[in-house]
Amino acid sequence: MSFDLKALLDRVAAGELGPAEAAGHIAAEMRDQPVEDLGFARIDHQRAQRQGFPEVVLGLGKSPEQIAAIAARIVARGHTLLVTRADPAAYDAVRAAVPAAQYHDVARAITCRMHEVPAGRGTIVIAAAGTSDLPVAEEAAVTAEVMGNAVDRLFDVGVAGLHRLLREHHRLRSARVIVVVAGMEGALPSVVAGLVSVPVIAVPTSVGYGASFHGLAALLGMLNSCANGVSVVNIDNGFGAGCISSLINHLD
Amino acid sequence: MSFDLKALLDRVAAGELGPAEAAGHIAAEMRDQPVEDLGFARIDHQRAQRQGFPEVVLGLGKSPEQIAAIAARIVARGHTLLVTRADPAAYDAVRAAVPAAQYHDVARAITCRMHEVPAGRGTIVIAAAGTSDLPVAEEAAVTAEVMGNAVDRLFDVGVAGLHRLLREHHRLRSARVIVVVAGMEGALPSVVAGLVSVPVIAVPTSVGYGASFHGLAALLGMLNSCANGVSVVNIDNGFGAGCISSLINHLD
Amino acid sequence: MSFDLKALLDRVAAGELGPAEAAGHIAAEMRDQPVEDLGFARIDHQRAQRQGFPEVVLGLGKSPEQIAAIAARIVARGHTLLVTRADPAAYDAVRAAVPAAQYHDVARAITCRMHEVPAGRGTIVIAAAGTSDLPVAEEAAVTAEVMGNAVDRLFDVGVAGLHRLLREHHRLRSARVIVVVAGMEGALPSVVAGLVSVPVIAVPTSVGYGASFHGLAALLGMLNSCANGVSVVNIDNGFGAGCISSLINHLD
Amino acid sequence: MSFDLKALLDRVAAGELGPAEAAGHIAAEMRDQPVEDLGFARIDHQRAQRQGFPEVVLGLGKSPEQIAAIAARIVARGHTLLVTRADPAAYDAVRAAVPAAQYHDVARAITCRMHEVPAGRGTIVIAAAGTSDLPVAEEAAVTAEVMGNAVDRLFDVGVAGLHRLLREHHRLRSARVIVVVAGMEGALPSVVAGLVSVPVIAVPTSVGYGASFHGLAALLGMLNSCANGVSVVNIDNGFGAGCISSLINHLD
Amino acid sequence: MSFDLKALLDRVAAGELGPAEAAGHIAAEMRDQPVEDLGFARIDHQRAQRQGFPEVVLGLGKSPEQIAAIAARIVARGHTLLVTRADPAAYDAVRAAVPAAQYHDVARAITCRMHEVPAGRGTIVIAAAGTSDLPVAEEAAVTAEVMGNAVDRLFDVGVAGLHRLLREHHRLRSARVIVVVAGMEGALPSVVAGLVSVPVIAVPTSVGYGASFHGLAALLGMLNSCANGVSVVNIDNGFGAGCISSLINHLD
Amino acid sequence: MSFDLKALLDRVAAGELGPAEAAGHIAAEMRDQPVEDLGFARIDHQRAQRQGFPEVVLGLGKSPEQIAAIAARIVARGHTLLVTRADPAAYDAVRAAVPAAQYHDVARAITCRMHEVPAGRGTIVIAAAGTSDLPVAEEAAVTAEVMGNAVDRLFDVGVAGLHRLLREHHRLRSARVIVVVAGMEGALPSVVAGLVSVPVIAVPTSVGYGASFHGLAALLGMLNSCANGVSVVNIDNGFGAGCISSLINHLD
Amino acid sequence: MSFDLKALLDRVAAGELGPAEAAGHIAAEMRDQPVEDLGFARIDHQRAQRQGFPEVVLGLGKSPEQIAAIAARIVARGHTLLVTRADPAAYDAVRAAVPAAQYHDVARAITCRMHEVPAGRGTIVIAAAGTSDLPVAEEAAVTAEVMGNAVDRLFDVGVAGLHRLLREHHRLRSARVIVVVAGMEGALPSVVAGLVSVPVIAVPTSVGYGASFHGLAALLGMLNSCANGVSVVNIDNGFGAGCISSLINHLD
Amino acid sequence: MSFDLKALLDRVAAGELGPAEAAGHIAAEMRDQPVEDLGFARIDHQRAQRQGFPEVVLGLGKSPEQIAAIAARIVARGHTLLVTRADPAAYDAVRAAVPAAQYHDVARAITCRMHEVPAGRGTIVIAAAGTSDLPVAEEAAVTAEVMGNAVDRLFDVGVAGLHRLLREHHRLRSARVIVVVAGMEGALPSVVAGLVSVPVIAVPTSVGYGASFHGLAALLGMLNSCANGVSVVNIDNGFGAGCISSLINHLD
Repeated sequence: MSFDLKALLDRVAAGELGPAEAAGHIAAEMRDQPVEDLGFARIDHQRAQRQGFPEVVLGLGKSPEQIAAIAARIVARGHTLLVTRADPAAYDAVRAAVPAAQYHDVARAITCRMHEVPAGRGTIVIAAAGTSDLPVAEEAAVTAEVMGNAVDRLFDVGVAGLHRLLREHHRLRSARVIVVVAGMEGALPSVVAGLVSVPVIAVPTSVGYGASFHGLAALLGMLNSCANGVSVVNIDNGFGAGCISSLINHLD
Repeated sequence: MSFDLKALLDRVAAGELGPAEAAGHIAAEMRDQPVEDLGFARIDHQRAQRQGFPEVVLGLGKSPEQIAAIAARIVARGHTLLVTRADPAAYDAVRAAVPAAQYHDVARAITCRMHEVPAGRGTIVIAAAGTSDLPVAEEAAVTAEVMGNAVDRLFDVGVAGLHRLLREHHRLRSARVIVVVAGMEGALPSVVAGLVSVPVIAVPTSVGYGASFHGLAALLGMLNSCANGVSVVNIDNGFGAGCISSLINHLD
Repeated sequence: MSFDLKALLDRVAAGELGPAEAAGHIAAEMRDQPVEDLGFARIDHQRAQRQGFPEVVLGLGKSPEQIAAIAARIVARGHTLLVTRADPAAYDAVRAAVPAAQYHDVARAITCRMHEVPAGRGTIVIAAAGTSDLPVAEEAAVTAEVMGNAVDRLFDVGVAGLHRLLREHHRLRSARVIVVVAGMEGALPSVVAGLVSVPVIAVPTSVGYGASFHGLAALLGMLNSCANGVSVVNIDNGFGAGCISSLINHLD
Repeated sequence: MSFDLKALLDRVAAGELGPAEAAGHIAAEMRDQPVEDLGFARIDHQRAQRQGFPEVVLGLGKSPEQIAAIAARIVARGHTLLVTRADPAAYDAVRAAVPAAQYHDVARAITCRMHEVPAGRGTIVIAAAGTSDLPVAEEAAVTAEVMGNAVDRLFDVGVAGLHRLLREHHRLRSARVIVVVAGMEGALPSVVAGLVSVPVIAVPTSVGYGASFHGLAALLGMLNSCANGVSVVNIDNGFGAGCISSLINHLD
Repeated sequence: MSFDLKALLDRVAAGELGPAEAAGHIAAEMRDQPVEDLGFARIDHQRAQRQGFPEVVLGLGKSPEQIAAIAARIVARGHTLLVTRADPAAYDAVRAAVPAAQYHDVARAITCRMHEVPAGRGTIVIAAAGTSDLPVAEEAAVTAEVMGNAVDRLFDVGVAGLHRLLREHHRLRSARVIVVVAGMEGALPSVVAGLVSVPVIAVPTSVGYGASFHGLAALLGMLNSCANGVSVVNIDNGFGAGCISSLINHLD
Repeated sequence: MSFDLKALLDRVAAGELGPAEAAGHIAAEMRDQPVEDLGFARIDHQRAQRQGFPEVVLGLGKSPEQIAAIAARIVARGHTLLVTRADPAAYDAVRAAVPAAQYHDVARAITCRMHEVPAGRGTIVIAAAGTSDLPVAEEAAVTAEVMGNAVDRLFDVGVAGLHRLLREHHRLRSARVIVVVAGMEGALPSVVAGLVSVPVIAVPTSVGYGASFHGLAALLGMLNSCANGVSVVNIDNGFGAGCISSLINHLD
Repeated sequence: MSFDLKALLDRVAAGELGPAEAAGHIAAEMRDQPVEDLGFARIDHQRAQRQGFPEVVLGLGKSPEQIAAIAARIVARGHTLLVTRADPAAYDAVRAAVPAAQYHDVARAITCRMHEVPAGRGTIVIAAAGTSDLPVAEEAAVTAEVMGNAVDRLFDVGVAGLHRLLREHHRLRSARVIVVVAGMEGALPSVVAGLVSVPVIAVPTSVGYGASFHGLAALLGMLNSCANGVSVVNIDNGFGAGCISSLINHLD
Repeated sequence: MSFDLKALLDRVAAGELGPAEAAGHIAAEMRDQPVEDLGFARIDHQRAQRQGFPEVVLGLGKSPEQIAAIAARIVARGHTLLVTRADPAAYDAVRAAVPAAQYHDVARAITCRMHEVPAGRGTIVIAAAGTSDLPVAEEAAVTAEVMGNAVDRLFDVGVAGLHRLLREHHRLRSARVIVVVAGMEGALPSVVAGLVSVPVIAVPTSVGYGASFHGLAALLGMLNSCANGVSVVNIDNGFGAGCISSLINHLD
């Protein structure tokens, strides 16, 4: 409870406020948090305060109209907007409501910066194993950037051609946190984590076919990494990786 | 390559060293890294330098004799020892070789501190959902402690009795990074991550029965967390969580 | 056997009925139950008597023509109609045969009330974790309503923003039975069940991506709930949850 | 918050209590709930009030000493004891601390009734498909009984010999709620639910071999039941079924 | 080897045939079996002799042109045609080549009877649990009929409405072999097999949703049947069930 | 209902029996079927009549005492005994109660023939792929033999050494029904079914390691057999296969 | 490192090159490998040298424009082109950039031979079980051919009609390495490997339905092959099999 | 058929042999192959001729007595013996029958060389990722050695410490075929295959815990390898890898 309970009680003690009224205020405060109810969604406008970034909208499973309505309310409060898994139709609907919104087509994300977010302390390297992993890697990159981080993209550095990775070794070494995106066997995070001493966030992708089982192979590979310092997010969850790496990069 | 290539070439230029000899030196340097080969294992004595902590021994699948031999070499170099998944027989073998070694029976870990490791910047909170999750939580705690971190243990705070968790809210808020250990449905990380704005490392445990499928339910639950800031390690991988949280906690 | 066997035998004893004829009657009664055979379906018109509500039609896997034919027969007997998993084409076909039929588009259900069903004793709260869970939650709500229950909808109260749920605590407390609908990690039922002492029917949804495996993660999470009082229905089975909660709510 | 906030504030207004002191009281109240912390466990002594029955101890994964310590504290408060998944060693430890405790060997449960629990309104029928399902069925029965319910056991009535079940039809009809326990193909709940109009709680068991995959076949069968009114708990979770059926049976 | 080896050798002994020539004949015979090679397929024209019915064409994964080409060759030899999993486009292509071919649209099968097949000895009952199972049940029925069997269709007799099944008891009793088709929980075969003493061929269907996992639940249920006399074929494999039941029905 | 309803009604008509009494008789008959209730088991003594063979006891999950009690009751009625999955301790208990009982140690089965069962019409060939499949194959063989069938054992004829199988081709051809038992890849049923035109009952075994996943690989292989005439029973279910093949072999 | 380190150092020794300059050369060499960075892809032009064949392009998940851009760069260097999983749209884009490119429609592959690749030593037999397996088999064949191997196609030789395979026995015997492509139960590799003494590369395909689970059944069958000499590639990975068989066939 | 058919027919033509007698000889030849039937096993003594190495005995699932009996017969024919998955009890039994037999305890294999097998052409490198993978790696090594190959062991070279592997690069380059053994994430084969241009046989091991699912993670990782030239054998199948690599190494 961030509101000033002590001050309130001071006023009761000072006779400025009746006890019943004070009890009402406390209850109201508890009930009156700035959650806006649209019927189909409850927007949490205090999230930026509580968690360092406003509520992010997952476009998946929402109609363009629902996305646009939520987006409009977020921007109306002066908060920065981030919509993930948004197709062009969703963007069209959002742009009608929020003309300044931008679309990142590879990342399938909509953003609209409304204010300066605090800058992260270092650089986040986002490494991707193959060309097909780019949409997920870009989702991570756009997320990290809109959250105030410097991002260094290092794409198509899969383990079957180690020299591609090793010659970019210095870029890995310059990172404060590394996001590694890979499908198929998902071996890249283990190799990267063996070369550095910073946290590695591994993102399995659904890239592959057959026994990749839509990303399961990469997910299991990453969870079983023999390297220290690897933690894993959901398959294709570029947003999650961008968000965690930003949290880490903003630690004092 | 950390050895001084430029100096070597200066000597060649100065005629102090023949070119064939120099080529030999370079090749030797590349081959001569401080990896000690025991036949069944190659100990990487430079890891502390490269990754901030000496090589850690996973006891699982190794004989007490193998563990003791590796432990002896690590300590002989003056490095701090950490053996995970070690049963009492392994400890007996290690103690014979390394009398100062200690056994943490809940965590099933052997440690021997040989030097001061750099201290982490903040506190790592390790929260566990139930009593049966303690061995994994303790493995995480012992790992984090031996790596130089202050640890705050917060046990038996599962989501079915929310008030147990909420009344420890201030302890969650005081953490720089939080490790959350839970079996069964694995819901605790989502709830915790919704209350804080620091990174949460989720550790599913194999606690449960039936459709927990040895931790699969908890693992999937954590990977699908609807909260931001959650990344996941392997089932029962307390060591991994301790290690990652230490890496994060040591970031400047 | 609900027909009057004793009366029949009285008539035999009274000589009003020959024994062979009586044997025929008994056999006929057993064979002659009011099941109507349409060739592709057998409609059970006695179900309302036996189970408290007429036969419900699962639209999935049936053609619009088949659905309309079954619907017409149910209404022709004066029974209330409920068709689930019905797309607009099915509704068009049904409306042609049953003009009074209504379509619930979020729930994808067709209803036609033909008589007053007995009212449930209390209120059924239907809680949903996110906006994308609404179709399943609405299917549960429409089902419960058409079966005579008061329904209180409580949507978008996922566990990552606990305060959204806690401030509606009084509504949870006012329920006689609670349906909880959630995808992704499926943690909401555990949290809700920890706050109340009435039965909780958990409905996993296929909302999510990657390692949600089309609702498997939520399903496993709910089956492994550490809270007491949670039982589970099939993934996306809003109808089932509405039906069970109605059965419970109608218990004297 | 059940403590009297209004009264407290009245006292502040009356000058009987300083505002700082009052703020301390409120915080204390929030922190001071009757949760007893044993280090390895937090016992929730208010649960009986909140949820109608004191905290139940899951023996699985706890040592006999831990179980006995928790049991002693529960009984010391005058609460009824129920320990599930308790082997004889656990019972020996508990009996030393709680001499009145009883052991139910088929159910593998320890109970100690300390007071009269409120009686359920009707009878709970517990049906089991085969002889091997008895431990789970008995766990459900002992749970329901210790929670104050009349239980009718109906064992070895699997679907391959329908007449065994049909001749007990009247007992099914007399139930207010039915627990159905079955392994292998798990078909019994569908058949039972088709015969009655009360809620059916289905418990899959790990009984079977080969493609039963430790209860998975029965679990999936029950989740896909084509009958209305079936909800499902975890594999082998007799306790859960007993608990839910008691909650339902205690509804006014 | 059905050709007359003894006769050949008689001719060698009689000097009518040189030994080299005879060796050539034997080798040729082995190579010259009536398998017709279309490049993309090898048609086995001797199958009718060897296995009682000509080669059956699985339409799945073949182009209409490939299906038509194979069909034409089979009919050209005077063999009865059966194509399964054939869509209307495949039928159009076949009809152009084989004008007498018929299409069974529910079963998605093409047939063309060219000769009288031997009649089975009894009746094959094909029971289906629900309306959505009809395509698979009809595939079984068409297959059994084209192979010379009398078929009795018994549809929509699922276990949740036992009386539907029990009143058709006499039809089950009149069968020589029974095919039972069911999706969802797949419980019907167990119930049927408990009522009769003839072989039951169980066909799981992919009917269902959520945790039916495209027929896996039904498949596992059937494999774990607690009734004697149930064997199982692949999910949706109506053809296989029709074929096996015909083999059994043709046994002397 | 096999009791004489017509005769009963004749007596009512003749005034020899009052109608109330008659109604009582009918109800009693329905309730009074010869199912013997041992508390933990209900023995179905009419099964021999209904299904051609008395009730078979699955030893798995029953105590030796339970098995012996059931066995004694079956033999006491003059029925032939078959207990499957019986270990030596179970046999000791049974032998004490039924001295004539025999133990088949490879098959892990107990039998006691009490009367002549009707002979099957032909021979059942039981083919097994490898030495490790013998326990399952012998369970099938013992089952088929005790049910009155001539059995021909054909062991260690796996597909990797085709000539082993092909040289026994004549034995396959002489069968009326064939049981094929195989672990690992489970390919033998496809090959066998391609050589004959009688039904093939495939039994996957849990023989293998790694990706055999305890028989899953063999099970899936058999379900996907490209050969006609193959149906499948549960993993390691030799009894089921013996039983079905006996049913088929007894068809007129 | 293939560049001449010794020569460089000779020049330093001879004073022809300054040490700083030499150090720069060495670093440059390490950084300057012929990897061409297109932003979305890094083309490895030295692969032909390192691995015997230029980089192969997996079309899956890449846009036609991306494929064409990569193809153009490969051909521009004089390297032979192979694109797999290419649809006609990709071919159109490639042909615009590389007019000499050819499309293999069954194999869905694009090739353009730019130079003579070294010839393999023997013949690669590519056997396929059924007509539906042809796309995968052709992908293997086109791959092997463009890599310089003689290929013998042996299609539609599934195990259910053994004679089809056995009469082509001599072709199997003439191979240096055999690729076996099969869906459904995937039994063909075991049978083939039992007939020959050369390596067999098994390719499971996703051909089948129901419990084939998109090729999982075939994959598991092949991994569990009881025959010696079988190794397995990913489901539908015709390219992989063609590539490995070429590597083997090129061994001296 | 290797017997002289032509010579036989010459004798018939010459009147030295009657045609009936000749037909008998041909049939006998087909039936009389040197397969020795022990009842529980059929030993194929011609395998050495057909497949280059005598029959190998898989100890798993066989009793020591069965293993010893088979071993004695193999050695009695003068063939080299290899028993895999043999525990010390099996060795004791074998040594009693075959005193010259040797036990390889890490590999759990029994061997007895009876004659010189043909030497492979090059060296087989067997690389293992970790110490716990040694039993599988040694099984591969012992198999390859007893089959006549030079083996180079390269152990504990996992991808998390790349320098351990890279400094042994020259040994990888010197191989004609490479076996790579790895558990956990199974990434080593991809990295190795990217460094060489010879075939790589990947062996997943069951080393690991949690989401390694007994080797499934490593298996899937290897099947999805993004590197060319990798084929895979069953989990823990060191024998299979040794055998295939020997086949390849013996190719001319």
